[in-house]
Amino acid sequence: MNGKKRLGKHTVCLETPPSVLSMACAAGKKEGEGPLRQSIDIVCTDDLQGQDSWEKAESFLLRQAFQKALDKASVDAGAMDILFTGDLLNQCVGSTFGLRESNIPHYGLYGACSTMAESLSLAAMCIDGGFAARAVAATSSHYCSAERQYRLPLDYGAQRAPTAQWTVTGAGTVLLSETGSGPYITHVATGAIVDAGITDASNMGAAMAPAAYDTLSAFFKETGMGPECHDLIVTGDLGTIGLQIVRDLFRDDGIELGDRYNDCGAMIFDCAVQDVHSGGSGCGCSAVVLCAHILPQMRAGAWKSVLFCGTGALHSPVSAAQGDSIPGVCHLVRFSSMLS
Amino acid sequence: MNGKKRLGKHTVCLETPPSVLSMACAAGKKEGEGPLRQSIDIVCTDDLQGQDSWEKAESFLLRQAFQKALDKASVDAGAMDILFTGDLLNQCVGSTFGLRESNIPHYGLYGACSTMAESLSLAAMCIDGGFAARAVAATSSHYCSAERQYRLPLDYGAQRAPTAQWTVTGAGTVLLSETGSGPYITHVATGAIVDAGITDASNMGAAMAPAAYDTLSAFFKETGMGPECHDLIVTGDLGTIGLQIVRDLFRDDGIELGDRYNDCGAMIFDCAVQDVHSGGSGCGCSAVVLCAHILPQMRAGAWKSVLFCGTGALHSPVSAAQGDSIPGVCHLVRFSSMLS
Repeated sequence: MNGKKRLGKHTVCLETPPSVLSMACAAGKKEGEGPLRQSIDIVCTDDLQGQDSWEKAESFLLRQAFQKALDKASVDAGAMDILFTGDLLNQCVGSTFGLRESNIPHYGLYGACSTMAESLSLAAMCIDGGFAARAVAATSSHYCSAERQYRLPLDYGAQRAPTAQWTVTGAGTVLLSETGSGPYITHVATGAIVDAGITDASNMGAAMAPAAYDTLSAFFKETGMGPECHDLIVTGDLGTIGLQIVRDLFRDDGIELGDRYNDCGAMIFDCAVQDVHSGGSGCGCSAVVLCAHILPQMRAGAWKSVLFCGTGALHSPVSAAQGDSIPGVCHLVRFSSMLS
Repeated sequence: MNGKKRLGKHTVCLETPPSVLSMACAAGKKEGEGPLRQSIDIVCTDDLQGQDSWEKAESFLLRQAFQKALDKASVDAGAMDILFTGDLLNQCVGSTFGLRESNIPHYGLYGACSTMAESLSLAAMCIDGGFAARAVAATSSHYCSAERQYRLPLDYGAQRAPTAQWTVTGAGTVLLSETGSGPYITHVATGAIVDAGITDASNMGAAMAPAAYDTLSAFFKETGMGPECHDLIVTGDLGTIGLQIVRDLFRDDGIELGDRYNDCGAMIFDCAVQDVHSGGSGCGCSAVVLCAHILPQMRAGAWKSVLFCGTGALHSPVSAAQGDSIPGVCHLVRFSSMLS
C-alpha cells in the first residue's frame, strides 16, 4: 500500500499531478537588466525598496511575489492550505518574516539554493497525498543580505574570484492546486546529500554539480525517461562552470545533454556583459527563472516536459571557516504540460 | 479527491497511520544528570566528544542517535527511503553535516525548536501519501554551539536572565514505517506563524506560547477531541514560563489542561537544582524527551494518546538586533497506541 508511488530510490510518480495555479516573481534592478527583463513581474528600481535593512528588503520582495501570485489566481491567502518556504538567511528570516502575516499553516525549509524545487516537491506531494487542495511554494534571496552573511559586507569592496557567482536579488512564488490547466508536476526526485570534497566557497558550481548529476541520472534510470524525452533540463544555479561539469559527467556516461540542458544561473544574467563572473546563484535565481520564463513558456506551448533541478550548497560560513567541505544537494521536479 | 484527509485548516487525519519503528537519542552530560538520566540511550561525558568544534560535536551527537535508532530496528541506512532533518545552526549544518554520509534522499527543514515535530509531520505524511515506506525524522541542538551563535561565546561568562532557558545538548532520531506495532501517528496539525510581538530573546517561552495555544486549540476544535481525550499533552520547549502562559490562555477559554499538560523543557531538567532557570530549550529538548521518555512510556502502556507539540521561535540574531519581534510556530503530532 504505502511507498506505492515510488519508482526507485529517488523518484516518485504522482497519481494525480497537481497543477500550477499561478506563479509570480519580483527581482532587483540588475536582474531587471538581464535577458528576462521583459518577463519578470515586478522589477524594483531600488534594491533597498524603502526598507531599513537588506534582510527586510528581501522579505518585502517575497511578499510582493506572493501577493502577485495570489492576485494572478484571483484568490486570497485564506484559500491556500499550506505554505512551504525557505531562504539562505540564518534561521530563514527572509521568508519567515516575509510571510509571517499570511496566517497559512507553514513548514519552513532549509535546502539552500535548492529551495524552490524542495518547496515545490513537498507542496506537490502534500496535494497528491490528499493533505491539501492548494499549496504555496516560495523562496527568496538578496545579493546584499547574502554577501554580508556569507562573505563580506559590500562596503568592503572585496574582489570576487572568476569562479564566483552573483546571488540573485529575487523572489518567486508558485501556487499549486489539485486541479487546473497545468503545467502539472508529474514526478518528484529527492536528492541525497553529495559531498565531492570541494572546499572553495567561491566555486559553488563545482560543489553542487555532482549532486545535480546524481539526482538527474537517478531520475533517468528510475523513470526510463532519458534526456531525449524532455524539452528542457535546467539546473538551479550551477553557473557556467558547474553547468559544464554536469555536461562532462554525463558525457563520461556516454550521454550528451546537448542544447536542451541549461542552468538558471546562466539564463538570468548576460554573464559576458553584466560582470557576474560565473553566473547567478541563490534561492531567487531558479525561482525567478522558473516563474518569469519556464512556466510562462510552457503555458505558451514552447516546452512540454521540463526537468527543474534545484541545486543547493549546504555549507555555512562557520563550516567553511572550520575547513570543512561543501556538501551539495539537488531536488528535481518534472513539469509536464500534460497529466502524465 | 485531494485535500480529502483535511479535517480543518490545520489538522489532517492519516488514513494508514505510520508506526514508530524505533527511536533513539544521545545527550550531553548535564542532560544525563537530569530526571531522564536512566532512559537516554547515549549520554556523553564530554560535550566536545573528541571533535574539534562544538558544531562538529553536535553533528556527532546526531550521528550517534541515528545509528542507534537503526541498530534498534536492525536495519541499515539503505532501508530508509527518505530523511527529514533540521537544527538551529546557521544553514542547518548540525544535521546536514551529521548525516551527509547516510546517502538517503534528504529534505532539510528549518522549524527552529519545532523541528522534531515538523520532521515527524512530513515523514508521516510522506508515508501515508504513498511516497515512502520508511522515513527518518531527526534533529539536534548543542548548548555550546547555540550559545555562541545566538548569544555570546561561553568564555565571556555572560549572566543569564531569570526567564532564559538552557539549550539542550542532545539529538533524537525516530524511524517511521508503513507497518509496525506502534505508537502510530494518526494526526498532524501544521501551525501557522503566530507573532505576539515579543522582542525579548531571553523569554522564548512567552514568544512561542501563543503559537502553541493556536495550534492546540485548532486541533481540539477540528478533531472534536478535547484535552480530556488525551493522556499527555506536551509542548516542546516553552519552559516553566511559557507552560504557564499556555495554561492561562486555555483557562481564559474555560479549558483546564490540568496535570495531563507538561512541557519537555520542564521535564528534561530538574529546573530547581540544575540552574537552568526557566527550563530546557532547543531542537534536542523535545527530541530527547520524545525518544527517551514519551515513546518508551507509550510502548510500556503508560499512555494511549499523546499530543506532541513542537514549538519554535523563528527569529535570528540579526532580526533581533534589528529590533524585530520573535514569531513563533507550533506543529502538533498525535501519537496513539492504537491505529486510530
